[in-house]
Amino acid sequence: MGKRILLAHGGGGEETQELIKNLFIKYFSNPILEALEDSATLEVSGKVAFTTDGFTVSPIFFPGGDIGKLAVAGTVNDLTAVGAKPLYLAVSFIIEEGLELSQLERVVKSMAETARKVGVQIVTGDTKVVPRGAVDKLFITTSGIGKVLKEGISARNLKVGDQIIVSGTVGDHGACIFALREGLDFEGLKSDCAPLWELIEPLLKEGIEIHAMRDPTRGGLAAVLNEWAQSSKVAIYVEEEKIPVDEKVLGLCEFLGIDPYTLASEGRMVIAVPPHEVERTIKLLKEHPLGRDASVIGEVKENPKGRVIIKTPYGVERFLEPPTGEILPRIC
Amino acid sequence: MGKRILLAHGGGGEETQELIKNLFIKYFSNPILEALEDSATLEVSGKVAFTTDGFTVSPIFFPGGDIGKLAVAGTVNDLTAVGAKPLYLAVSFIIEEGLELSQLERVVKSMAETARKVGVQIVTGDTKVVPRGAVDKLFITTSGIGKVLKEGISARNLKVGDQIIVSGTVGDHGACIFALREGLDFEGLKSDCAPLWELIEPLLKEGIEIHAMRDPTRGGLAAVLNEWAQSSKVAIYVEEEKIPVDEKVLGLCEFLGIDPYTLASEGRMVIAVPPHEVERTIKLLKEHPLGRDASVIGEVKENPKGRVIIKTPYGVERFLEPPTGEILPRIC
Repeated sequence: MGKRILLAHGGGGEETQELIKNLFIKYFSNPILEALEDSATLEVSGKVAFTTDGFTVSPIFFPGGDIGKLAVAGTVNDLTAVGAKPLYLAVSFIIEEGLELSQLERVVKSMAETARKVGVQIVTGDTKVVPRGAVDKLFITTSGIGKVLKEGISARNLKVGDQIIVSGTVGDHGACIFALREGLDFEGLKSDCAPLWELIEPLLKEGIEIHAMRDPTRGGLAAVLNEWAQSSKVAIYVEEEKIPVDEKVLGLCEFLGIDPYTLASEGRMVIAVPPHEVERTIKLLKEHPLGRDASVIGEVKENPKGRVIIKTPYGVERFLEPPTGEILPRIC
Repeated sequence: MGKRILLAHGGGGEETQELIKNLFIKYFSNPILEALEDSATLEVSGKVAFTTDGFTVSPIFFPGGDIGKLAVAGTVNDLTAVGAKPLYLAVSFIIEEGLELSQLERVVKSMAETARKVGVQIVTGDTKVVPRGAVDKLFITTSGIGKVLKEGISARNLKVGDQIIVSGTVGDHGACIFALREGLDFEGLKSDCAPLWELIEPLLKEGIEIHAMRDPTRGGLAAVLNEWAQSSKVAIYVEEEKIPVDEKVLGLCEFLGIDPYTLASEGRMVIAVPPHEVERTIKLLKEHPLGRDASVIGEVKENPKGRVIIKTPYGVERFLEPPTGEILPRIC
């Protein structure tokens, strides 16, 4: 048995200082964090994006990622989705007493690697340790600051004629966690968890006229499209045949009788652009490995306002309803 | 029995949207939040302070405050402590399935009131609901952005001769939570939980030469002074007689044989200023109700470097050691 996290590590005294120095500073190392003041001091200017997300995924390690990678990628993607270059992250850990230190170290290392890949710095943080039973293993809340490179990307900004693009297969993360938690034997299911800044940056640099952009996490594609249709008071028509879904994910969905469009992705982006931008957008996305399966899946029409219509491969049209109910708790 | 939080409230679908609209937007109401994008978009410039803190206090309601007031005040105080005017907050809720909606509403209302008092806006947030047993009731992580008005306030910036000031009695919050949790009958113990921006703003406006400033939360006064002595490589001498401690807090400490200097405060500031600034600083602090008991408690000397020395009322000097061990989990 290795070392474990003690309540003393969250007491604010000597043990907390040791944990900060030997773990967080070791991996997140940068001069701003190392100042160790109550707040980090940054230099920023102009329009700034600010976001926060709590991560409670269970289990904390899964094929394709872990809670640390997810926490960094999730916040990076929320900044990216408003056209902002991710710059700085703040991290708050809430840890259950008794967690193996080696598990926490694996998570912290994964966070550092994911952050480094995107060029984002973890500049401030907080650690609380709570007694056994007050939290299940480890929750992480990440907050982020980014510099807005393109303004006006918004759920309210879809226009009739806009084409809807997804950057890759949908539902991989949700399917992976689902199978893992239910003990289902679906070999090869893997979370798509990934930071998307590198994939989207070229679109912003090339000045693509993005109207709306969002990562389809909780509630999946169905949640994003319904929010967009409602916020922009338009109809969104998608074709089932065109929506990329991994065949192992499809297999699980058929087995369980669930819809892949309500399953979370954690490394995909849904993008709405006017028709004249489609070709360039798809080309730029496909130049990056994360955008290999980028596809146009539908378009924006005028009516019925606020609704999403999906056309099945047999030509039947039905509403793709906004997800309701529990779906899958602790998916992210 | 009133309505309760369901897993569906955290599913990212329709119920999540309802909770956001009927609770968070209702109380936190501001145009930035109401855009409901993945990230809030803000206009900032120059030196910016950025901080995050997780709050896991148990119980979630206590004399003098609640987890919501604490979460807003804590982050406001961390920004204030680096000389920054608090501007924007991000809030992440992790809620246990089954929490009464009326309790959550009470917390949210308290957050909104505390934020309004300071003039800070809650501009973005996230809500996760986890199954019973995966978290104890409610954890909140708040992150904040502020505008740095005075640079260079730092734990590394104490100079020999600096005077150490506390803005009020120490240990009230810790003593209150301790008594409540242990079921001790110490009538009248009350948390000092409060946002300190209004108390400190005049010091910054008047250009007081603050060398170091910190709110003594986990680990209390002992943790702050030891961190300062170590970071600035100086000795800090304090006099026990001069440290304001509420007599009910003293009573509890004597009863339990604990030291009030390791108990958390949540509405106090420890400030180091050069001798010529002491009079003005004390005067400005005392002009605000939160600074009524402001006192000079000691001074910075050269040796022994990295240590804190406390002189008892009997004239005996001893080291005030940095706190170790668990102290009191879930104090904040």
